Amino acid sequence: MKTYGVILAGGGGTRFWPLSRKELPKQLLNLTGKDLMVNETIDRLAGNVAKEDILVVTNCTQTELMLEATAGRVSPDHVLSEPAARNTAACIGYAAMEILRKYGDGVMCVLPSDHYIKKTDVYKKVVADAIRTAEETDALVTLGIQPTYPSTGYGYICHEEEKAAGGFWAVRSFVEKPNLEKAKEYILSGEYLWNSGMFFWKASVIMRYFEELLPEVYACLQKIGGAMGTEEEAKVIQEVYPQIPKISIDYGIMERAGKVLVLEGDFGWSDVGSWDALEALYEKDEYGNITYGEQVHIDTHDCIIYAKNKLVTTIGLDNVIVVETEDAVLVCDKNRAQEVKKIVEALQDCNKPQYL
Amino acid sequence: MKTYGVILAGGGGTRFWPLSRKELPKQLLNLTGKDLMVNETIDRLAGNVAKEDILVVTNCTQTELMLEATAGRVSPDHVLSEPAARNTAACIGYAAMEILRKYGDGVMCVLPSDHYIKKTDVYKKVVADAIRTAEETDALVTLGIQPTYPSTGYGYICHEEEKAAGGFWAVRSFVEKPNLEKAKEYILSGEYLWNSGMFFWKASVIMRYFEELLPEVYACLQKIGGAMGTEEEAKVIQEVYPQIPKISIDYGIMERAGKVLVLEGDFGWSDVGSWDALEALYEKDEYGNITYGEQVHIDTHDCIIYAKNKLVTTIGLDNVIVVETEDAVLVCDKNRAQEVKKIVEALQDCNKPQYL
Repeated sequence: MKTYGVILAGGGGTRFWPLSRKELPKQLLNLTGKDLMVNETIDRLAGNVAKEDILVVTNCTQTELMLEATAGRVSPDHVLSEPAARNTAACIGYAAMEILRKYGDGVMCVLPSDHYIKKTDVYKKVVADAIRTAEETDALVTLGIQPTYPSTGYGYICHEEEKAAGGFWAVRSFVEKPNLEKAKEYILSGEYLWNSGMFFWKASVIMRYFEELLPEVYACLQKIGGAMGTEEEAKVIQEVYPQIPKISIDYGIMERAGKVLVLEGDFGWSDVGSWDALEALYEKDEYGNITYGEQVHIDTHDCIIYAKNKLVTTIGLDNVIVVETEDAVLVCDKNRAQEVKKIVEALQDCNKPQYL
Repeated sequence: MKTYGVILAGGGGTRFWPLSRKELPKQLLNLTGKDLMVNETIDRLAGNVAKEDILVVTNCTQTELMLEATAGRVSPDHVLSEPAARNTAACIGYAAMEILRKYGDGVMCVLPSDHYIKKTDVYKKVVADAIRTAEETDALVTLGIQPTYPSTGYGYICHEEEKAAGGFWAVRSFVEKPNLEKAKEYILSGEYLWNSGMFFWKASVIMRYFEELLPEVYACLQKIGGAMGTEEEAKVIQEVYPQIPKISIDYGIMERAGKVLVLEGDFGWSDVGSWDALEALYEKDEYGNITYGEQVHIDTHDCIIYAKNKLVTTIGLDNVIVVETEDAVLVCDKNRAQEVKKIVEALQDCNKPQYL
């Protein structure tokens, strides 16, 4: 059976503000210093999915930039444009319908477009296992990341004690971001993995779950599917898509589906959720700093300093994030990188849309 | 006797980098939010010195900007341009010679161009007293600032115990920047004032001291004076000025002259020597911050944040200085503002003249 990459690239990032903007979300940033996050995600599928079988689902506000960014990698007619953001169930359903109607059934590798993976070789092997498992078992397969610390920033997947012969576990439940105490318990139990948001299933299998568990979403997808390949396609998508109920694939299907399996991944994963996550991506210098761009430091330690255009200079700083972009500067306690979204909210509240 | 203002405006500032540059020193900055430092200094003389009797001595690299900045305040032929920086004795001698040869004798009010004074009315009264004292006594008169804390950043003037009827003290000695212990002793003694660098004397009197105490400087000044008003003037200044020995008026004359008097000033003075000095100039907001420009803060206290062009945002900062200009950003521990010059040195060392 053919395998399709489905890259979810419609999110609007606020947590890398001021670098990320409404129309320049994280997936379109080069945070690694190598390539845009979305292109790294695409290239990482090499060996598992043929280049011409990769689809990217993005939001209409980003379509133009996405086409430009992925030119030469993804065929323009494989960049699906959502007329509105309707959460992950909608865009995964849209991609599944596209595959079913236009290319026949296939295994979908559903991947976030803005995650970092250190050990690509290990990743490729696990993805190959996941594709095979999805094809052989007709299950919904997900990758769980072996936790390296009791994170309160990630969701968890609780699995059965015993691993099956295929190297996977049956999933007991999906668990939301825990407090620190719970997170420690999870890790000690050995039965919890981080929820990576990477999913593998046949298009036909997930579509049956839509029909069973999310009938309203399914009805919309049916309308869209009916118009696919006709002259009405664009018009129907434009009309129907915004009516799809907003629900995540986790809440809508994964937590309620009958047959969900998890494969363990241990490939240096990070969702790169905020500026401090750059510490997983870059080598620190001898003073513990991660730096990008033109800089001069005096007695500066354990900082993250990103200079896009200007010279950035520091004196006597510890554990501070400094980010400089065309029109804004952020200076933030490194332990409070999560609060960058509060700046974005404040900018909304005080009506400064030029910075969003 | 006529009174002349002599504003010393030739210094090249590094301590307000990145706002101050080699060709845009502190005196040409608007640090108060009201006007350029040099113009505030000029305007502060109103009532004591007629506008047309104010001279500005600047460095040739800044002459053009200075003429532009002071246009309408100072007659262009009253802006004296030093062909080279030769310290304060040279430029004060040059101005004294200019006054003697072109306007006859007069009392000179020699003032740094980049100091801040909060209580202008008190200042004007003390300056009037100083002018009168200089005229009546033929002494070298200086203003000593009533210390408000044991500063290790200022020089001190030690005076006699007993005040004379004229309201001044005879000066015992000039003292260099002390350590904290010494500074505390000075303050407790009640016989020490901060050296403000403001001097009042007759042009003829200071010229006699040049002749007596700095004969080499005097010889150069004589050559320059001899050419004044002739076609050779510019050429001679260009040739002779760079040969004047480099020495400050404090070392060269004040510390060695026979008759030096000091008047006490208590008018909210600051030499605005580094970024943290802005705390004396601005009202703090309810969180103890001093801010200039477009900003958004979350949980930020006791900071100094200067945003020239861009939006500056902060999260969880205490006692930090953030300065943003066209081409550079500085983020500095507030207690280490003195070290900004080290950044400038580092930029010199790593050959980045565009930032100097």
